[in-house]
Amino acid sequence: MSNMKDVAREANVSVATVSNFLNGKKVRPKAAKDIDLAIKKLNYVRNNTARFLKTQRSAFVVFVVPSVWSPFFSELTFWVQKYLDNLGYKMVLCVSENDYQKEKSYVTMAEEQRVAGILSISYSDLTSHVHSDIPLVSIEKESTGQFSLVSSDNYEGGKIAAKELSERNIDKYIFIGSANHSSVEMNARKAGFIDYCNNHGLKFEIAEVDSRKNDKKKIKNLIDEISNNGKKYGIFAHTDEIALILTQEFQDAGLKIPEHVQIIGFDGWKLTPDTHLTISSIRQNIEEIAKTAVEQLHKEMEDPDHREISRLMIPVAFRAGDTTENK
Amino acid sequence: MSNMKDVAREANVSVATVSNFLNGKKVRPKAAKDIDLAIKKLNYVRNNTARFLKTQRSAFVVFVVPSVWSPFFSELTFWVQKYLDNLGYKMVLCVSENDYQKEKSYVTMAEEQRVAGILSISYSDLTSHVHSDIPLVSIEKESTGQFSLVSSDNYEGGKIAAKELSERNIDKYIFIGSANHSSVEMNARKAGFIDYCNNHGLKFEIAEVDSRKNDKKKIKNLIDEISNNGKKYGIFAHTDEIALILTQEFQDAGLKIPEHVQIIGFDGWKLTPDTHLTISSIRQNIEEIAKTAVEQLHKEMEDPDHREISRLMIPVAFRAGDTTENK
Repeated sequence: MSNMKDVAREANVSVATVSNFLNGKKVRPKAAKDIDLAIKKLNYVRNNTARFLKTQRSAFVVFVVPSVWSPFFSELTFWVQKYLDNLGYKMVLCVSENDYQKEKSYVTMAEEQRVAGILSISYSDLTSHVHSDIPLVSIEKESTGQFSLVSSDNYEGGKIAAKELSERNIDKYIFIGSANHSSVEMNARKAGFIDYCNNHGLKFEIAEVDSRKNDKKKIKNLIDEISNNGKKYGIFAHTDEIALILTQEFQDAGLKIPEHVQIIGFDGWKLTPDTHLTISSIRQNIEEIAKTAVEQLHKEMEDPDHREISRLMIPVAFRAGDTTENK
Repeated sequence: MSNMKDVAREANVSVATVSNFLNGKKVRPKAAKDIDLAIKKLNYVRNNTARFLKTQRSAFVVFVVPSVWSPFFSELTFWVQKYLDNLGYKMVLCVSENDYQKEKSYVTMAEEQRVAGILSISYSDLTSHVHSDIPLVSIEKESTGQFSLVSSDNYEGGKIAAKELSERNIDKYIFIGSANHSSVEMNARKAGFIDYCNNHGLKFEIAEVDSRKNDKKKIKNLIDEISNNGKKYGIFAHTDEIALILTQEFQDAGLKIPEHVQIIGFDGWKLTPDTHLTISSIRQNIEEIAKTAVEQLHKEMEDPDHREISRLMIPVAFRAGDTTENK
C-alpha cells in the first residue's frame, strides 16, 4: 500500500506539500495537479487511523442500545446515526440486549479505542461504570446525575393518556405496566396517569404484565372481567408492545375494540418511515430525542473541559388510531 | 492520560514487561501484581488505535445498509452485530438511505480508516465503486461478480407462494411487485411465482405499486375489480410492506380477508424477537443470512490473499398468518 512519501516522490514535491494539499491548505496549482495525478496513479488511500492518533481525536461515537430489533430502537438508531453522520461522526453500534456485562465491555472498548464519545440507552446502571472523563449522553434513563440525559416527557404523557380516555365515556380506567421496565423515567408515565385520575375523581386500577413472558393468565382474567361486566374499559398501556399484545389477545377472545375496551399505548411505533401501527398511542418524538442527544454530545465532545450536565425533556403527543373511539 | 511508560515506571518494571503482560504473555507473578496495581492507580486505559496501527489490523467492520428503520433491516442489523461481536469485531453502522453518494462516502471512509472489512446491502452498484482489495461481502444483491453474495432463495420463495395460494381455492392469481426494488435477486421472487403458475396452468396477472408513494389509485382499481367480481383472489406481494399496505387498504374498503382475497407477503417481518405481524408471508431466515455473511467475511478477512468468491443461498419457508385461509 502506498503512503504519503510515495505520493510526494511520484508528484515530485515535498511530503509537507502533499500533507498541506490533503488538509485543504493552499498549494501551487501545478503541485495540486501533480499530487492529484499521483494519488490516482498509486491508488493512494489516506490512513486516518494515523491521523487520529496524531491529533488524539477520533471520529467514532459508540452507541450503546438494548436492541435495534424493535420499532422504537430502530427508529432511534436511524435518527442518531443520521445526526451523527451530519456532524462527521461514525457510529459504532453496540447492542447490549440488556446484558450488563456486555454494556461494560462496550464501555471498556470505547475507552480503549479512545472514541470521541458515547451515547447510551441503558436500563441498568451503565453510567456508574464509566470511569474515564469520556463525554457521554444518556437517553431515557440516567441514575448517577454525572451525565446529561435526554428523555421524553413521560409524566406529561401519562396525564395526556388519562385525559384522552376520560373524553371517551370510560367507566373503568386501568394502567397496565411493564414488569420489565423499572426505570424512574419510564415509571413517570404511570405517575402522570395516576395523578390525572386522582385530580379528576376517576376510578382506576393498576396491573402489570411481563411482555417477554406474554403473561397469558393475567390477560385472561382481564378478558373475563371485561366480558362479564357491562362497563366500558379504558386501558393505558406502558408501551406499544403491551398495547399490541393486549389488542391481539382481546380480539382473539371476541372482545370488540374500541366498543368494549379502548387502549392507548406509549411510543407511537412506526414500522418504517411510512408505515405505522394502527393502535392509538402517546407518540414519542424520536427524531427530536436523537437530534437533542447528538447535539448535546457534540457540545461536550467539542469542549470536554466545560461540560454542563443537562436534563433535556422532549414533549410527547397523542396519536389517535383505531383502538380508541372518535371524540 | 498515562501511557505504558508511566505504568512501567510506577510498577518498577520494563516497558517490555508491561507489553508482555498486556498481551497475555507470561511475566513473573510479582511483576504481574505490581503492573496490575499500577494500572489501577494510574487509571491506565490501553490505546488500541496505536496497537491496530502497528499490527495493521483493525477490529472495525463497516456495515452499509439502506435503513435500520424497517423490521427486515432492523432484524438483519441485530444479527449481523451479534455475530460480528461474537468474533470480536465492532460494527460501524452506515445507513445509506439508498443514496449512492452516501454509499460511496462510506466506502471511502472504510478504506481511509483501514477497517477489517465491509458488509453491505445495497440496491445500487455499490460494489463497482470499491477499488481497494478490502474484503467485502454483499447481502441480497451483488452485480459485479467480484464479491461474495449471501441471499435468500428468492426464486424458490416465489414458487412456494404460488403453490400455497393454489392449495386455497383461488380463482385469480396476482403478483404485486415493488416499483422501488429493481435487483435481479429480488425479482427472482416474481420469476418463481410466474414459473409455478405457468407450469400448473394457473391464470395470473402482474401489477406493481410504489410503496413509497402508496399508489392509492392502482390499489383502488384493484379493490373495484375484486368487489365487482364474485371471484376469489390470491395475491403474492413482493414484500411484507406492500402486503401490509394492501391489507389495510382492502379492509378500509370493506373487503374481507381471507374470504374475498388472500394475501401472502415476503420477508416474514418480526417487529421484535417476540412480536410478528399477522399477515401470511414467505419468511426469510434473517439470522442465517447474517450468520453466513459474517462467517464468509471472517474467512476473507483472516486470509485476504486467498479469497473465494461465493454465492450462498439461504432457504425460505411459508409462515401462515390470518391473510390466508386454513388449508
